[in-house]
Amino acid sequence: MRDVYVIGIGMTSFGELWESSLRDLFVEAALAALDDAGTDRLESMYIGCMSSGLFVGQEHIGPMMADYLGRTPIPATRIESACASGGAAVRLAYLEVTSGVSEVVLAGGVEKMTDGADVTAALSSAADQEYEVYHGVTFPGLYALMARAHMQRYGTTSEQLAQVAVKNHYHGAMNPKAQYPFEITVKQVLESSMVADPLRLLDCSPVTDGAAAVVLASEDVARSVNGKPLVRVRASAQATSTIALHNRAEITHLDAVEKAARTAYQLAGMAPDKINVTEVHDCFTIAELCVMEALGYAEPGQAAALVEAGETRLGGKLPINTSGGLKSKGHPVGASGVAQIVELTEQLRGTAGDRQVSGAKFGLAQNMGGTGASCTVHILEGLS
Amino acid sequence: MRDVYVIGIGMTSFGELWESSLRDLFVEAALAALDDAGTDRLESMYIGCMSSGLFVGQEHIGPMMADYLGRTPIPATRIESACASGGAAVRLAYLEVTSGVSEVVLAGGVEKMTDGADVTAALSSAADQEYEVYHGVTFPGLYALMARAHMQRYGTTSEQLAQVAVKNHYHGAMNPKAQYPFEITVKQVLESSMVADPLRLLDCSPVTDGAAAVVLASEDVARSVNGKPLVRVRASAQATSTIALHNRAEITHLDAVEKAARTAYQLAGMAPDKINVTEVHDCFTIAELCVMEALGYAEPGQAAALVEAGETRLGGKLPINTSGGLKSKGHPVGASGVAQIVELTEQLRGTAGDRQVSGAKFGLAQNMGGTGASCTVHILEGLS
Repeated sequence: MRDVYVIGIGMTSFGELWESSLRDLFVEAALAALDDAGTDRLESMYIGCMSSGLFVGQEHIGPMMADYLGRTPIPATRIESACASGGAAVRLAYLEVTSGVSEVVLAGGVEKMTDGADVTAALSSAADQEYEVYHGVTFPGLYALMARAHMQRYGTTSEQLAQVAVKNHYHGAMNPKAQYPFEITVKQVLESSMVADPLRLLDCSPVTDGAAAVVLASEDVARSVNGKPLVRVRASAQATSTIALHNRAEITHLDAVEKAARTAYQLAGMAPDKINVTEVHDCFTIAELCVMEALGYAEPGQAAALVEAGETRLGGKLPINTSGGLKSKGHPVGASGVAQIVELTEQLRGTAGDRQVSGAKFGLAQNMGGTGASCTVHILEGLS
Repeated sequence: MRDVYVIGIGMTSFGELWESSLRDLFVEAALAALDDAGTDRLESMYIGCMSSGLFVGQEHIGPMMADYLGRTPIPATRIESACASGGAAVRLAYLEVTSGVSEVVLAGGVEKMTDGADVTAALSSAADQEYEVYHGVTFPGLYALMARAHMQRYGTTSEQLAQVAVKNHYHGAMNPKAQYPFEITVKQVLESSMVADPLRLLDCSPVTDGAAAVVLASEDVARSVNGKPLVRVRASAQATSTIALHNRAEITHLDAVEKAARTAYQLAGMAPDKINVTEVHDCFTIAELCVMEALGYAEPGQAAALVEAGETRLGGKLPINTSGGLKSKGHPVGASGVAQIVELTEQLRGTAGDRQVSGAKFGLAQNMGGTGASCTVHILEGLS
């Protein structure tokens, strides 16, 4: 095993992108990442995508994307792990470079969600079709169960959930690629339509088209290409839990997140208090709280207090989702895990503009699928 | 990079398996492979599956399979490359072991195709949805174009195509796991219903439920487990071509197959004439001929003569698809590439029974997606 570096990043704007097809989105992000990397060398590609089959009737997107990127005959493989597809694609690109099989590998993520498919039904295919979805539950419903349980166990309030969304929109308002780059208030969240009690519209991440891509490379290549600050992958970890929420011992505890995080801390040789900037999978506001607790950023039930105290806001001790997160930046499901790495790389290069976390050296990205049945955690280090 | 071995193999019977769900099929094959491996150790899983979303409304099958196999929290990732999904899963398991990240990794493949979905439409999602499928073409239609072109260029006949199916059924009749374990005649093929001229029903692989799994491990583990003959992965290669058939310079030439094969021969340090037993992707009879030519087993247009001469039959110089191939054994699309490795391992261990190729030392598996837009080639060596 050898060290792996992020040498290029790119992403489309996130939003309802009526004029761009699935392949257009991917190619735009991948070309931007290759341009940023400053090298034409590319030996393999992984593309995270949850459900191009159900969304636009297209499977087999690996060779399609290699084709439209003008990169055949290199290997190109689609990776699917629901909303953790992007993180899983990054992990596989990491494996291919660390193994010594390839020097330069692209990991991309893409989703085209607004082309007319039944989005709620397609997303539900990330839950257990036979034991959850069959009975009518949807993802807002599943996360609402987690939220209600969290409220009951720990006294978490709707106001505290709203503050997560408010904080992420505060960050997203500074991200020109965000789908909803504007601030919102707690009052607006609490007055938005109820989706699945206690989750309201503004507790939920949106439906989004978009793509993101990163280029990973060996140290030799990283030191020879674009002269940009080096960003090293310190840890790549992945874990699973039960597919169905009802099979977990405690539905407010994301055990796959905890397991992936522990593995990542061990691989990186560091405790969570070393992390300067974090991107987490805030598909719903409750998710951000549960993830913070599973990452060891807070004791169970204590995450909301950190959010209330402003600690997870830019300028706080542990800024989370400076990109705007899934809530404000948008959530093209297969792309979100890759977009997290894009944001962290900007932060660790010191090029995040208004969103820059001063002196950021270590960044952590947490991406999950379903109700947390799959999770990837990556830790990056800026060497500038 | 270090050597990787196949230490366990398992598969379900292939067929219309009304009583088994997607998860049942995978778990049956994976348990058989782990039992065969003789170790409880397992650090990661890859599951090849083309379209569980369109077939049974279930994505996110990585954690589901880890869950139902009782193996959470290990990482489990679904890989999709249409009908090459299984081969791609094997390649990723290989990468994870050769990298040193894990010692023991399972690669499985599964598809549940007979649960009522529109199979032709679901399979069509492996072609270019916007530029091929939109115009009404299906996979029998695309391969019929290749067959017609092959006939025109090289004088290939319908009788020669039929002989491929007859040979594969001859082998499949000796495989108790095959979906159609009986012999057929050239006359039967030529009198079967026309599907897409010149391809008839018995030129086409069937619609199948099934799963297969292999366990890959490092040399240390391989030498310490089950005492079975060692089977080493000598090469794992993958390549892509244009997603749409009409964008290729020559539609009878499978350039991704040629590229993957050349890479594999180079990695293994051997020429194709060293291979003793081969499994190829005979989704249609014409595919087997085009693949033989792309693998370098025959000059363009000369493969049919080898089939006619019996060279690719058990007892011939280069036996192909001793398992029965996709045609007789069945084609659960995500599982087929893994089932090829199961057959080769049996052959290289010398445990293939009536189908045994005497003295087989080197085996090659070729698995492809769509009209050959993605392809994997693996070369295995028996060390007994």
